[in-house]
Amino acid sequence: MSHVVRPLEAGDRDAVLGIVTRAGNFTADEIDVAMELVDEYLDEGEESGYLTYVLADDEATRPVRGYVCFGPAPMTEGTFDLYWIAVDPDGQGRGIGRRLLAAAEAEVRARGGRLLLIETASQAAYATTIRFYERAGYTLASRIADYYRIGDDKLVFEKRFSR
Amino acid sequence: MSHVVRPLEAGDRDAVLGIVTRAGNFTADEIDVAMELVDEYLDEGEESGYLTYVLADDEATRPVRGYVCFGPAPMTEGTFDLYWIAVDPDGQGRGIGRRLLAAAEAEVRARGGRLLLIETASQAAYATTIRFYERAGYTLASRIADYYRIGDDKLVFEKRFSR
Repeated sequence: MSHVVRPLEAGDRDAVLGIVTRAGNFTADEIDVAMELVDEYLDEGEESGYLTYVLADDEATRPVRGYVCFGPAPMTEGTFDLYWIAVDPDGQGRGIGRRLLAAAEAEVRARGGRLLLIETASQAAYATTIRFYERAGYTLASRIADYYRIGDDKLVFEKRFSR
Repeated sequence: MSHVVRPLEAGDRDAVLGIVTRAGNFTADEIDVAMELVDEYLDEGEESGYLTYVLADDEATRPVRGYVCFGPAPMTEGTFDLYWIAVDPDGQGRGIGRRLLAAAEAEVRARGGRLLLIETASQAAYATTIRFYERAGYTLASRIADYYRIGDDKLVFEKRFSR
């Protein structure tokens, strides 16, 4: 099956909500924040500060399999933050996350980005996520102990691009 | 002269703009971001996610001498971010920054906060700021090299509170 990565459209909103809900590792608060960013992007496009792409099956009744949201870090020159990346649990293990991350990286480089940062949590629910970033070439840049709650640190992973 | 620390009011907006402009270490972009937060707080109050206080002389024709903006870090339990603190250059060296920071810390603790984080830049213009945080009991928790631009790292200082 072939795939396409394209900018998020209004008609994808329910699919994205379904994905972040079924993903299972996001709290209700986190889902709210993820959808706020989706809605800001749908309302304002790139003016929102966010870039949002979906990966869709070329041929399918429910085609959106994952999405990625990232954007330039305010007050920086060439630094980007990856805010959210999520893949439908039904489609995991098929390289969809890797393709979405690669698409985000390509877009960051095309826009002159030299540094991409990803925040995540140290808790067990994110162990697979952390291995995913490490396999994609990210290294741990920062750890703030007990940031999210006692025992759940904030980790920042980084990847640097040469121009 | 006595001082008062009180919540920011709409009539303080021009004074705060003057302070961040005259402070001399903020870029135009940074001033825009600082004022966006001020305006969100003035529009929405605490619903904005920001808490903003000014220090004013009790008796003066231009009474606002500095301000501080901070708030709960989204998706955390008990972590707060200090977003902006600025003191009028005419009033520096009189302990105004220290009083504003102490007021923010007291409010964080009153709201059950256990961790206060402050982001700043490693560039020379912030050397005095960094010494200010260190003297106030903050320690360096994280450094992201070349975050703002090549040669200008992002530093995160932290202070932890016992309950």
